[in-house]
Amino acid sequence: MTEQRTLRVALLGAGSVGSQVARLLQEHADDFAERSGARLELAGILVRDPDAPRDVPLPRELLTTDAESLILGADIVIELMGGIEPARTHVLAALRSGADVVTGNKALLATHGAEIFELADQVGASVSYEAAVAAAIPIIRPLRDSLAGDRIVRIFGIVNGSTNFILDSMDRQGLSAEEAQRIATELGYLEADPTLDLEGYDAAQKAAILASLAFHTSVEIDDVYREGISDVTADMIEDARRAGSVIKLLAVCERIADAEGEAISVRVYPALISREHPLASVHGGNNAVFVEAEAAGPLMFYGAGAGGVQTASAVLGDVVSAARRHIAGGVGVGETPRQSLPTARIGRITTRYQITLEVADLPGVLATVAGILSEEQVSVATAMQTVENAGDATARLVIGTHQATEQALSDTVTRLAESSVVTRVASVLRVEGE
Amino acid sequence: MTEQRTLRVALLGAGSVGSQVARLLQEHADDFAERSGARLELAGILVRDPDAPRDVPLPRELLTTDAESLILGADIVIELMGGIEPARTHVLAALRSGADVVTGNKALLATHGAEIFELADQVGASVSYEAAVAAAIPIIRPLRDSLAGDRIVRIFGIVNGSTNFILDSMDRQGLSAEEAQRIATELGYLEADPTLDLEGYDAAQKAAILASLAFHTSVEIDDVYREGISDVTADMIEDARRAGSVIKLLAVCERIADAEGEAISVRVYPALISREHPLASVHGGNNAVFVEAEAAGPLMFYGAGAGGVQTASAVLGDVVSAARRHIAGGVGVGETPRQSLPTARIGRITTRYQITLEVADLPGVLATVAGILSEEQVSVATAMQTVENAGDATARLVIGTHQATEQALSDTVTRLAESSVVTRVASVLRVEGE
Repeated sequence: MTEQRTLRVALLGAGSVGSQVARLLQEHADDFAERSGARLELAGILVRDPDAPRDVPLPRELLTTDAESLILGADIVIELMGGIEPARTHVLAALRSGADVVTGNKALLATHGAEIFELADQVGASVSYEAAVAAAIPIIRPLRDSLAGDRIVRIFGIVNGSTNFILDSMDRQGLSAEEAQRIATELGYLEADPTLDLEGYDAAQKAAILASLAFHTSVEIDDVYREGISDVTADMIEDARRAGSVIKLLAVCERIADAEGEAISVRVYPALISREHPLASVHGGNNAVFVEAEAAGPLMFYGAGAGGVQTASAVLGDVVSAARRHIAGGVGVGETPRQSLPTARIGRITTRYQITLEVADLPGVLATVAGILSEEQVSVATAMQTVENAGDATARLVIGTHQATEQALSDTVTRLAESSVVTRVASVLRVEGE
Repeated sequence: MTEQRTLRVALLGAGSVGSQVARLLQEHADDFAERSGARLELAGILVRDPDAPRDVPLPRELLTTDAESLILGADIVIELMGGIEPARTHVLAALRSGADVVTGNKALLATHGAEIFELADQVGASVSYEAAVAAAIPIIRPLRDSLAGDRIVRIFGIVNGSTNFILDSMDRQGLSAEEAQRIATELGYLEADPTLDLEGYDAAQKAAILASLAFHTSVEIDDVYREGISDVTADMIEDARRAGSVIKLLAVCERIADAEGEAISVRVYPALISREHPLASVHGGNNAVFVEAEAAGPLMFYGAGAGGVQTASAVLGDVVSAARRHIAGGVGVGETPRQSLPTARIGRITTRYQITLEVADLPGVLATVAGILSEEQVSVATAMQTVENAGDATARLVIGTHQATEQALSDTVTRLAESSVVTRVASVLRVEGE
């Protein structure tokens, strides 16, 4: 028995995701009415210029530049503008007016999440954001609802499709970083300013959102340790390939407990992963996220990490839930952080390094290098020396360490770089997924 | 602000999952109170014999054999007894008394799902069953909520851990079917009566539940076409391995549209999958489910497909949601089927076959075989003939077909079996995942 009430939906933004949301809401209006228990009436679409040309045709009469009226009259506000302002102002206004909010805005949540969730809690409205992390892949709802009876220990995965496309093209087609970036730009994987993706900011925003939710703690973008992929060269990828590994840009969120107490660590960096690991076969622009919970064990969620229509699927799933909630009444799921775990500085984290050195091809070099590691309390798991160039008597030494703190590992790298037997530190990569 | 209301939870059954649910509810009582917005008080545990020895110690005072009183006094009833009766009677009684129900009982839902969901709708209670399909892997909630704004086209995957363990052991360790089954029994993957798993009944129950939810149609176990793994031999696995494939027991649920109209197909059978496909690397007792939706594209969900504590995680996620709902008020998510798509008979489905024949090693054999396929309108994609045993002049012919209807394919196999040039039909397997 569906009650044919009508809910007014305001759409803010008509870009690649917003235009697909508008199209699907109108094309499948009857389906949405059945699933939501209410007709979802698209009340208006906020755009900068109603007369601008559009890829997906939108009804001219729905386009408006009057945000205030549109938001005030809406039961559900879908924010797909991106960026901090005016998105933040609009979302807060929507919540104050009693509307439920659905957003795909990772930058906004990773910087003003606490403010937004607190207001939502106060007014008893909901904020849903499945589309903010991994496009169509359901990850927010499983973390929030499915695993609500479990304790999440670790999340790690590939949450940025652009950099995965680039690293995957370098690995599978032997492209240089520049070539791979050029193709990624041509195919629309990279924005005009690719820094957000390449330097790991996009992945760091997503990691902050995931960690906040998983650990019931407010994590913002500045709490995330971040390295991008701009130092990853074709040589490093080729070395990894020969050793049975791939390089992936990983987001890692984990609980830690050490002498300093309980904390969380949230970080983004390129890391080596064995080719046997399921994340190694995440190709192109796809995303995949591992979630490890105490009782559930490891779970993986995989799918398209970008795309207008794919992301629209996540937005619309949230819209249907918001509509059901709006009709049923009742409060939203509170997201106000209940724990306030500190974020650990990177030096406190335990990881493994793979350090590739160019060294003089002389007797005693390995002993010197091993001595430095030993003094820094870093154990060697594997060491492989190959003569690179017999002519100038240099060799290559690849050291895989056992687990050690980042502090000890980075101190070790600093000392190795200063050592007289080391010509050059060719690369330093963390090893994950073991 | 958590309102410290108390909700009474009745647990029916204290087997491997139930005892973990009881333990976790008590050990993490404060966590559950915070997450649910109410203290969850374990009011009692229904058991057959309160004095029976137990692996997980349970408070003797909570154990009861009085189902009626326990259920009547509960806000949330967790049914983990398994089997049809008395589970069905208890679940219906719980709903009638206004309790929300959480169940992991796939047999019950696959046979009496319609009755249960209809009653829940009538009384405005919820029935949650994340644990019924893939243990800890969140699949029900993503289908019901995350993809509520999308249209699911196809679900396929590995939903039975026992048979996956057996097939994987045969593939990776070269075991015979008997050896693999013996080890699976020793490790607790197989029940005393292994028929439910081996003959695909367990997978078929899960497929019925998934299809009902995905296609908003009531699908019961009898609507599911089913073949188990008892005909899969070590030779077939070895042949697959050499050809770069693996054999997996797959559950497939899909929408079809043909001259007869729209319908759904729900089926379970062993099938060949390329080793490149993500499902090929699902090892041991793990499960993985692909969901293809119109907008979202393909998504995959992966994790442990069995285990007491893993399944308890899914149960407790449902319990927390039920508790939130119970406090917030509002109606449950209606699961009454809104569409009534017919289930297509197997002959109507389009698949691909790989047919392995033992044939006489004589000129003209391939022509005869190809002629039969052609007369049945089945196109040959690949054909490979190898002389098996030069002594008795027999050869082996492996035919991979293009897509054709099951009717045409099975008619073809019947005619091939009757042909004078064919000594024996060694194996027939469907090919999936391409």
